[in-house]
Amino acid sequence: MSEFNKNIEYPGFGFEVTHQDENSGARVGKLSTPHGVIETPNYIFCGTKASIKNLSPYQMKEAQTDIILANTYHLMIQPTADIVEKMGGLHKFMNWNGPLLTDSGGFQVFSMGHGTCADEIKGRNTTAKKESLLKITEDGAVFKSYRDGQKLKLNPEISMKLQRQLGADLIMQMDECTAYQVTRDYTARSMEMSMRWGDRSLTAFDETHDGSQGLYGIVQGGIYHDLRKTSAEYVADRPFFGTAVGGCLGGSDEEMYGILEAIQSLNHPTRPIHFLGIGRIKDVFESVKYGIDTFDCVMPTRIARHGMALIKGAKNERINLINTRYKEDPEPLDASMDLPCSTEYSKAYIHHLLKAGEMLGYQIVSQHNVAVINQLMREVREAIKEGSLEALRKEWLCD
Amino acid sequence: MSEFNKNIEYPGFGFEVTHQDENSGARVGKLSTPHGVIETPNYIFCGTKASIKNLSPYQMKEAQTDIILANTYHLMIQPTADIVEKMGGLHKFMNWNGPLLTDSGGFQVFSMGHGTCADEIKGRNTTAKKESLLKITEDGAVFKSYRDGQKLKLNPEISMKLQRQLGADLIMQMDECTAYQVTRDYTARSMEMSMRWGDRSLTAFDETHDGSQGLYGIVQGGIYHDLRKTSAEYVADRPFFGTAVGGCLGGSDEEMYGILEAIQSLNHPTRPIHFLGIGRIKDVFESVKYGIDTFDCVMPTRIARHGMALIKGAKNERINLINTRYKEDPEPLDASMDLPCSTEYSKAYIHHLLKAGEMLGYQIVSQHNVAVINQLMREVREAIKEGSLEALRKEWLCD
Repeated sequence: MSEFNKNIEYPGFGFEVTHQDENSGARVGKLSTPHGVIETPNYIFCGTKASIKNLSPYQMKEAQTDIILANTYHLMIQPTADIVEKMGGLHKFMNWNGPLLTDSGGFQVFSMGHGTCADEIKGRNTTAKKESLLKITEDGAVFKSYRDGQKLKLNPEISMKLQRQLGADLIMQMDECTAYQVTRDYTARSMEMSMRWGDRSLTAFDETHDGSQGLYGIVQGGIYHDLRKTSAEYVADRPFFGTAVGGCLGGSDEEMYGILEAIQSLNHPTRPIHFLGIGRIKDVFESVKYGIDTFDCVMPTRIARHGMALIKGAKNERINLINTRYKEDPEPLDASMDLPCSTEYSKAYIHHLLKAGEMLGYQIVSQHNVAVINQLMREVREAIKEGSLEALRKEWLCD
Repeated sequence: MSEFNKNIEYPGFGFEVTHQDENSGARVGKLSTPHGVIETPNYIFCGTKASIKNLSPYQMKEAQTDIILANTYHLMIQPTADIVEKMGGLHKFMNWNGPLLTDSGGFQVFSMGHGTCADEIKGRNTTAKKESLLKITEDGAVFKSYRDGQKLKLNPEISMKLQRQLGADLIMQMDECTAYQVTRDYTARSMEMSMRWGDRSLTAFDETHDGSQGLYGIVQGGIYHDLRKTSAEYVADRPFFGTAVGGCLGGSDEEMYGILEAIQSLNHPTRPIHFLGIGRIKDVFESVKYGIDTFDCVMPTRIARHGMALIKGAKNERINLINTRYKEDPEPLDASMDLPCSTEYSKAYIHHLLKAGEMLGYQIVSQHNVAVINQLMREVREAIKEGSLEALRKEWLCD
């Protein structure tokens, strides 16, 4: 296959760095899409199956959310991209008229082949769920539907078609997401294939490009800095709208941030940089220093379903509301916030709801967690402008 | 035990019939409580464990809800009435500042002893769940906690104490709710005991009465009209604030409405009448003719959790959104309504959410169903005023 060497214009899109920190790679920017402009750094909340778990688009907006995502893998299986397209596209389907991102679908295919998504990113070795991924070839991946075992195929051309049908603003090239336990040799060959898949993604994207979508290239290469660098140079060289950092990021925070540092100078300087699947509060503080502009993670809504509320300055970033200590606690989650979920319900009531298995408990904590992360991102942007990121980090994190 | 023959004043409460239908017992009224005035006929939504399933108080208000209830039985077990009282009472605990009702707790104790609540009311014979009710004596009932098997007791004095601690506006006397399969003789003896329990409830209520709560007496007597009449006369004779119709109502609609007809002339004419646990749309149309002012039923939110949306004029009052026919249906639940849940999401999207097990699906359908019932009640009130109840019934019900 020949190299993709055309230019692609993204007239409906833009990215402008409005402030650059003097002492680090941290920056504030404006990311423009046909569905609105968001300030960066920002956080993209996960609406996996075209729904943020437990929250409506209205509740997401009430929590001051700017941008969300949905997962192509889940949607291609149900309801199918055909139906979403017939219903007017994903924005209309899920009733979200702000900026929206979809991934290529590849990540779930591969992570379900190797283990869970989090296991992949965090480098945890697992042998669970190996059955769903049937075959990876140069063409793409063959896997079994998680719903009915039906054999399905995903490759760069299919991913571009599906993401076109879904119609999100920001979309992702197809890549292979390698597992932590694979060899350096496998990671290298996989990264090279992801580059070829990047070119195939660009070719397919360009064929139907109408200005409504911006395509991100994905930096792969696992924990190997030289591979990461090659991949970053590839992404910067091609006419992608944005840069995403994906794949296995190692088994420790140091390894993860080391990867960001290794590629920092190679990332295209005028494109937005997205960090795929990462988003603890501490990750935000560390990663923005390497120029990361957007994050996504299921954490805020997932931990809510385990009764965990994000609290500024709390140990491990959160409190566990199921703990008996909250049984008679009349205080709200955070009286200083501008959201009824955070200010109007006592911890005792939320504790009761969670113990009773009442869905309202998950709804309250989910919306609170989303609002906390949005507040974090607003404060991070301000702190970058004011050069006070380290002071803000100390407010938020209890080290 | 001697007869209760004091008067009780309810200064913070009131009930005024503002319009009486000429051709039936249907009436429009104003029911005043310390937490607000509601127009009747009205519908009391069930927040069993101090939460309407899947909906926040804000979403209930957005759906134009006037009044809700919680169940003493569930709350005495968890979080306990002591904790609710410490947290400032049920209104504050659940963040609902409108009118609120609690039941005595007896209904669940007895129905869990005999079968499900719905089985009792509808007269379905069942042998399930007989284990939890351990003993019924003149004093009260001993039963096992559904949470941990702990032995608990409920009697009129305990029920009044618990309901006082919870602090709802409208509260219920303790009664025995008999099963469909019991003999006439058992029903008669039970009804007589419920009358004695009514007097004990009044005595206990009066001891701590501070004007913040209005006590309802409950008409029992099963399917036997003569017993029902004796019970209705008892309730009308005692200084209750309101009248409630409870217990087994037979196995058919005719039997149920026949009971309402039998007691209609005996109910106290200037007190509000509540129909316990009943609330299909057809029940509302039939029952208001016998002077019923308020209804309560878990139906609107329970059927939502099975993917059923209430639709004006639909067969059996509802549609099943899980049905494949809605897979590509771009229409909202009801474009004529004033609620985003009813107007902004396509049936195709809700179908997808329900199939995917996304809680947002239940949230959308639950709020829609509550809004539909509130719209029904507004229209019923208007129709009674205009003498057009039968025409409205034809709009709502597909016979």
